[in-house]
Amino acid sequence: MILCDIGNTYIHFCDTYKIWKNLPDEINKKELSSDVYYISVNSINEKKLLKAHKNSYNIASIVNLDTPYVGLGIDRKAACLGVENGVIIDAGSAITVDVMDAGNHLGGIILPGLAAYTQAYRSISPALEKRINFGMDFDELPLNTQSAISYGAIKSVVLTIKEIVGDKKAYFTGGDGKFLAKFFEKAIYSEMLVFNGMQISIDKALKKHKEQK
Amino acid sequence: MILCDIGNTYIHFCDTYKIWKNLPDEINKKELSSDVYYISVNSINEKKLLKAHKNSYNIASIVNLDTPYVGLGIDRKAACLGVENGVIIDAGSAITVDVMDAGNHLGGIILPGLAAYTQAYRSISPALEKRINFGMDFDELPLNTQSAISYGAIKSVVLTIKEIVGDKKAYFTGGDGKFLAKFFEKAIYSEMLVFNGMQISIDKALKKHKEQK
Repeated sequence: MILCDIGNTYIHFCDTYKIWKNLPDEINKKELSSDVYYISVNSINEKKLLKAHKNSYNIASIVNLDTPYVGLGIDRKAACLGVENGVIIDAGSAITVDVMDAGNHLGGIILPGLAAYTQAYRSISPALEKRINFGMDFDELPLNTQSAISYGAIKSVVLTIKEIVGDKKAYFTGGDGKFLAKFFEKAIYSEMLVFNGMQISIDKALKKHKEQK
Repeated sequence: MILCDIGNTYIHFCDTYKIWKNLPDEINKKELSSDVYYISVNSINEKKLLKAHKNSYNIASIVNLDTPYVGLGIDRKAACLGVENGVIIDAGSAITVDVMDAGNHLGGIILPGLAAYTQAYRSISPALEKRINFGMDFDELPLNTQSAISYGAIKSVVLTIKEIVGDKKAYFTGGDGKFLAKFFEKAIYSEMLVFNGMQISIDKALKKHKEQK
């Protein structure tokens, strides 16, 4: 059984302890040697998985999170399911920040992903078309455009996450999760958060199925 | 004499106490009854002004701000010139935040403008294509997508500006300046910041010119 999380940019796979990601147009079929159980936030990329691997099954209907939040993405639901208390930050194309308290989802926010910041600056003016400097020093005020946009993007994301996290535990996942976790004392980084929640959902569904027999 | 500040989205004009803005393709020629003295951060829009009004003169060469910052936009230079001590926030297509101390420019940062956030969310996923809710309540954790992106965009901008402002005075200008100023105790909003700096530069140049005679 392979677990699969279809995002807006990448398709992430998990086969027991092995994790990998493919671009939707570059799915490595050789890796997909068994049934794939997936969730998806992008219907175009979902079709690409189904084309690459027929035996793929959407398990959204068994990924259940109690929440008053309307329209919570299925990947956010899955990531939250594995955390009883804490803040879950999934830093991918978008950066989602969700609060779990005693197993209840209290709400969450959405920031642009760091790549989306680069794209946003570029779209404002060619003069702002610079790479984010991930090694920059935040103790000094920026003295050039690259530092100025790097400070703006990274600091704004970090400060907003800090505002939500407070003294709670922060669980990071996603492509930029490892980088962002560095700015937090009580941070845990795991590539497995979404897959953990999917596995919890599958286990629950199987248990229920057995009980009904 | 009409002062003019050519930005990436709008062209701003000032005729003594009257201020107005036009889209670059919709310059109201009737308003331009005298010579126009301008600065520009966008060469395409600059050409559009020159086409609409021949008697327009670029005064960038007399807008001088002492700074170690490399590549500071001419509009940021002008806005800073009118402030001895404080933080200057110009919230337009981009949001620039610059620190002045005893007449010296110490550096600054760049955030995407609020409209660029909307665009960034949209580019990540159609599911995030929502308007920013400018009236939202930040005391509650968001429980839907519109609140989640509004919180993300507004809060990240406000927190980052607060980090730079500290206990200094904050001078806001630009299209979203009035809205953002609301989040600051010691905030001053003025549509005139850039024009003030341009006028200071012109006065200085005229004085120098007289002294040389």
